[in-house]
Amino acid sequence: MSDLSAVKALVFDVFGTVVDWRTSLITDFMWWGKGRGISADWTALVDGWRAVYSASMDEVRKNPQNGYVMLDDLHRRSLEKLVAQFAIKGLTEADLDHLTKGWHRLNPWPDSVAGLTRLKTKFVISPLSNGNVALLTNMAKFAGLPWDLIMSAELFEHYKPDPETYLGAARLLSLKPEQVMMVAAHNYDLKAAQSYGLKTAFVARPTEYGPLQKIDFEATGDWDIVAKDFGGVADKLGC
Amino acid sequence: MSDLSAVKALVFDVFGTVVDWRTSLITDFMWWGKGRGISADWTALVDGWRAVYSASMDEVRKNPQNGYVMLDDLHRRSLEKLVAQFAIKGLTEADLDHLTKGWHRLNPWPDSVAGLTRLKTKFVISPLSNGNVALLTNMAKFAGLPWDLIMSAELFEHYKPDPETYLGAARLLSLKPEQVMMVAAHNYDLKAAQSYGLKTAFVARPTEYGPLQKIDFEATGDWDIVAKDFGGVADKLGC
Repeated sequence: MSDLSAVKALVFDVFGTVVDWRTSLITDFMWWGKGRGISADWTALVDGWRAVYSASMDEVRKNPQNGYVMLDDLHRRSLEKLVAQFAIKGLTEADLDHLTKGWHRLNPWPDSVAGLTRLKTKFVISPLSNGNVALLTNMAKFAGLPWDLIMSAELFEHYKPDPETYLGAARLLSLKPEQVMMVAAHNYDLKAAQSYGLKTAFVARPTEYGPLQKIDFEATGDWDIVAKDFGGVADKLGC
Repeated sequence: MSDLSAVKALVFDVFGTVVDWRTSLITDFMWWGKGRGISADWTALVDGWRAVYSASMDEVRKNPQNGYVMLDDLHRRSLEKLVAQFAIKGLTEADLDHLTKGWHRLNPWPDSVAGLTRLKTKFVISPLSNGNVALLTNMAKFAGLPWDLIMSAELFEHYKPDPETYLGAARLLSLKPEQVMMVAAHNYDLKAAQSYGLKTAFVARPTEYGPLQKIDFEATGDWDIVAKDFGGVADKLGC
């Protein structure tokens, strides 16, 4: 483990790293669909939704003339296409809004809240997520995530892994990049963070994508910390 | 009291409204000065520092070509002038940094933490302060302020009472202005917030400026709530 004594703040990827978006959404939508009398393959919808996530952010990157589009709006656009594609019938405007806001109602992994609570005693803790500020704020209240502040791609008008996000987070905290550690379950996110000078911690979340998971079962880079959960990160940082 | 049922988030002025900057700084500097062997009229320094606060932000407004300058940097510039003016001797670079960061170590008014904790059960609560993000984040950890997120003038690159701050806060929360209530001990701040469509709550802090206080002993506008402390705001909002 490299020298981490300068680290003052930990910034966290959220979808998959802190919260189990897939199980949360599928469960939420199944129960909601039963009550609302809407029939659909909710698992396929959720997996399809996440499958177009990366491409939807690429569209924003490729079209800067259109301005930044926050994740709630990207989610909504993608949902409308998927609803047509899967021929889900009977959804009103309010229903589409409710489903889109499902991303605000995600449950943490079992170790997340306890781990964050320990880490907060010694470090500033914040999300650094592609979710927009309102999404992350509502999720924190829903899931009991004890963030010190909310940092979102929206503040920088750039999605991860663009450099503006990692460097912007350090700047807002008035810290040098090496005083900030990125915590993520995704190697690509840590690779970018490391390339811009941040410290890195990997926590495997091998069930994030359910049976569809193909990568990120283990650390594939030279990360400063590799732990099995947030409690393990806290152990290694002496919290 | 007007209809406040649409309010989802409360945003707070911080210096003077949530924390007692004057007593905190004077006490902090007196003890520090004793230990460090630096002699000065710390009360005069603190009062002088705050007296140039508004003008220092005006300089940023008048010189947009220079870019936004965060409050820590304005504080530092003002401090250097005051140290020369008051002929305070023996301060090192580290001392100047320590004094400037005094604004990160402010104590809450006696009702602040309990009131915020009650309000947080029903509303999103955030600072909306001219303090920069790092200042507000460090202060929250120091003072135990249970914010859901940190919103600062720095995020909008405009100081209050510029409209970008109030409207920017509503936008980041994905709320309409009338769904956001500004809480402040300063009538000018509420007047601006109200003019941009936010709801308003006034809490008098009659000792904020000590013997120098000349205004804001009472509400001078038609605010939605007037209360004697944060507990009173919570009472009126049914928390």
